[in-house]
Amino acid sequence: MKTSFINKDTIVALATPQGVGAIGIIRVTGPDTFAICNKLFATKSFKKIDLTSKPSHTVHFGVIHDGDVIIDEVLATLFKAPSSYTSEDTIEISCHGSGFIQQHIIQLIVKNGARMAQAGEFTLRAFLNGKLDLSQAEAVADLIAAGSSASHQVAIQQMRGGFSNKIKLLRQNLIDFASLIELELDFSEEDVEFADRTDLKNLVSTIQRIVQRLIDSFEVGNVIKTGIPVAIVGKPNAGKSTLLNVLLEEDRAIVSEIPGTTRDVIEDEITIDGVLFRIIDTAGIRETSDIIESIGVEKTFQQIKFSSIAIYLFDAHDITATELHQIVDDLAPHLHNSHLLLVANKIDKEDINYIKKEFSDFPDMLFISAKERTHIDELKQHLVKLFDSKTVNVTETIVTNARHVEALQHTNVALLRVLEGLSNNVTGDFLAMDIRQALHYLGTITGEISTDDLLSNIFSRFCIGK
Amino acid sequence: MKTSFINKDTIVALATPQGVGAIGIIRVTGPDTFAICNKLFATKSFKKIDLTSKPSHTVHFGVIHDGDVIIDEVLATLFKAPSSYTSEDTIEISCHGSGFIQQHIIQLIVKNGARMAQAGEFTLRAFLNGKLDLSQAEAVADLIAAGSSASHQVAIQQMRGGFSNKIKLLRQNLIDFASLIELELDFSEEDVEFADRTDLKNLVSTIQRIVQRLIDSFEVGNVIKTGIPVAIVGKPNAGKSTLLNVLLEEDRAIVSEIPGTTRDVIEDEITIDGVLFRIIDTAGIRETSDIIESIGVEKTFQQIKFSSIAIYLFDAHDITATELHQIVDDLAPHLHNSHLLLVANKIDKEDINYIKKEFSDFPDMLFISAKERTHIDELKQHLVKLFDSKTVNVTETIVTNARHVEALQHTNVALLRVLEGLSNNVTGDFLAMDIRQALHYLGTITGEISTDDLLSNIFSRFCIGK
Repeated sequence: MKTSFINKDTIVALATPQGVGAIGIIRVTGPDTFAICNKLFATKSFKKIDLTSKPSHTVHFGVIHDGDVIIDEVLATLFKAPSSYTSEDTIEISCHGSGFIQQHIIQLIVKNGARMAQAGEFTLRAFLNGKLDLSQAEAVADLIAAGSSASHQVAIQQMRGGFSNKIKLLRQNLIDFASLIELELDFSEEDVEFADRTDLKNLVSTIQRIVQRLIDSFEVGNVIKTGIPVAIVGKPNAGKSTLLNVLLEEDRAIVSEIPGTTRDVIEDEITIDGVLFRIIDTAGIRETSDIIESIGVEKTFQQIKFSSIAIYLFDAHDITATELHQIVDDLAPHLHNSHLLLVANKIDKEDINYIKKEFSDFPDMLFISAKERTHIDELKQHLVKLFDSKTVNVTETIVTNARHVEALQHTNVALLRVLEGLSNNVTGDFLAMDIRQALHYLGTITGEISTDDLLSNIFSRFCIGK
Repeated sequence: MKTSFINKDTIVALATPQGVGAIGIIRVTGPDTFAICNKLFATKSFKKIDLTSKPSHTVHFGVIHDGDVIIDEVLATLFKAPSSYTSEDTIEISCHGSGFIQQHIIQLIVKNGARMAQAGEFTLRAFLNGKLDLSQAEAVADLIAAGSSASHQVAIQQMRGGFSNKIKLLRQNLIDFASLIELELDFSEEDVEFADRTDLKNLVSTIQRIVQRLIDSFEVGNVIKTGIPVAIVGKPNAGKSTLLNVLLEEDRAIVSEIPGTTRDVIEDEITIDGVLFRIIDTAGIRETSDIIESIGVEKTFQQIKFSSIAIYLFDAHDITATELHQIVDDLAPHLHNSHLLLVANKIDKEDINYIKKEFSDFPDMLFISAKERTHIDELKQHLVKLFDSKTVNVTETIVTNARHVEALQHTNVALLRVLEGLSNNVTGDFLAMDIRQALHYLGTITGEISTDDLLSNIFSRFCIGK
């Protein structure tokens, strides 16, 4: 299946983002890399130089020229096969960060026999040449897209093979099991059982439990990747939009702490201690209170339904403890898996003790002033704590990829059929069929089993130059 | 003067553009570069490695870690002093192109003793350490900003020292001259003349003519940098906006030929064969014809006044040769330095011969159909030809920098005073004063004479990381 993808030509792409910067990197990989670059590269004093004669992993200062015209002074970094990202001969040209220069150099390289790389084609080659398995390759794209500490950690662990090794181990255990069953089939007329049925049942159910746990981890994984959904609900004038702005502003301040670093922050995402929170339907919060009033409580219930954490914000001077009990009771049936966090707003130093007494029935309640920005840190730490208590440890293996979880679900079904078969004492050939199916689906995760469609679907998600 | 700028600390910055890409480069330079990176870098299998023990210009694969947490798999490229861009120990860390990862690594490096670099600070160090002179350093910023082949060529020639060498040569000649004059001053009581006055006059006037030519080249240089101003004028419905759109569209098609390369095209700039043309006041062209009618011919004259090339576009079926003669006469007094190009529009195959006959009095006239896109290439080639004939050869030394031209103007004034003094047989001490002034101003161009204010003014134009 893989062969149709192996194009043994030489490809080129800009590997750094578009835009003006100090440096741009142009990446060339494939069999003609050195031959092409030799034609275009010369020393600073315009003497030809044979890059092939230089050792791998060395850097050379010189110029890229188009005939007599010097395009730029560059650094050429050499990676000789198989010691490169793609396993093929690779040269990275570090030129000045001007779109004009980059375009010119890329055009020159194309004119001399390379082809513009497709999105993800460098990583595809790394996979096809056995440098990365499929799950590791997919993690590269996740790593580049990671916007929070938690999603970054999951991606880097996956890229470094943590998840793949787990899957490969499961698969190896199943193969051992399968080979015993297949052996029985060979001797089927003699009616022997090489595999002790009780041992087999224990092994398969252990594997099935691990697969099930991996499937379950997807909920957490998905939340890590896309953010923990938080709903801020409450009556009009409770201060919902003020609170949101305070949370967003502080986050932005952190992001812009280092001069020159900005990122496209989607308006209503907040990162606290490396954990990404996503405020649900903030559009509603941002509307004027009249509109919210008119939409009514139905909307509040909707928001809570899709949240992992629901913040009920209220004006501490506007609600009695009795009323709050009633509200908590009203919200309860809508909470599903969501954790309700009661937050009393508009607290100042004078009234704090009086108010704390009023609401002493509610032990976990937080007291803040969004407007004065007091106790906001406490609220943020509480959100992180709720995340920790709701999720497994990030350093455990977590599935974040929808394709992987689908393969695991198919594996699970097949394993459950094996267990059922063992309970019903079905013959080895039936067991073998289901085992083979489980092996197949596990294999698609790491790419031991793959199709062209699957590959092009995966690698088109990448950016050009990776 | 320079000493206050020499901060012997270690600085760090992101050298590639912001945004998601395959690769990001973080640059560290200064005395603690290797010590800091040694703390953060380890092999892939998490073993410590002493980068100091590795040779310069080599690349090392490994991880950047924050304690036990792996931040990314990276390549570290080592440049040992003085063989680096800044002349100081430098490491370039090539990490994944995620803003999150880049920010984290930069924060780690800062936490371990480096400082965030100011805009242009790497190039400032290259200047302070004698790697580049000031004019070469300024060319680096021009090179990155260059958007056309001509401006790019001028910038790269300047960066490679072409302009500096010319200035240094002039300055050396003047110094030779000055030393003879100063010698006379030492022996002033003996009333000897070491310097033959006729030879001196020839030398200074040669230098003055070169300086004058460099000053004159600024007009061309400026045009190369900002584009050759072109006015498209004509009656309503002559097809001006259609022509503009055709020119712009074709240009954009070229720009987007390579997938993934885009640049911020200012609406009304057109690059033809690497030469940048700037359409003056296209807003007017884009308005509906009614509005143009109401603004009247005064606006047309204004546009022509600021142009280098004025295209008079007309509907070939709407104007007789006699009328056109009248129009050319009317435009003539407004042309100043602008070249008038007559373009007959709305030509089709049937009527071309008839129309060419009608206008046979006008040998340089072009016949196009903007709507049908016929003979547009001919028009474009004509524009490039007009640019070539109007300008000096780009490979000659051209001044593109306003600061340089100002220094040259001061130099010129001083040299003219020297020549005047020589004609009036003034004494050597007066000549020496003016010569010193000329030397001073020439010295500011290459930075042999500089002030802190000048330096911070120049380097703040750079982007971070350069």
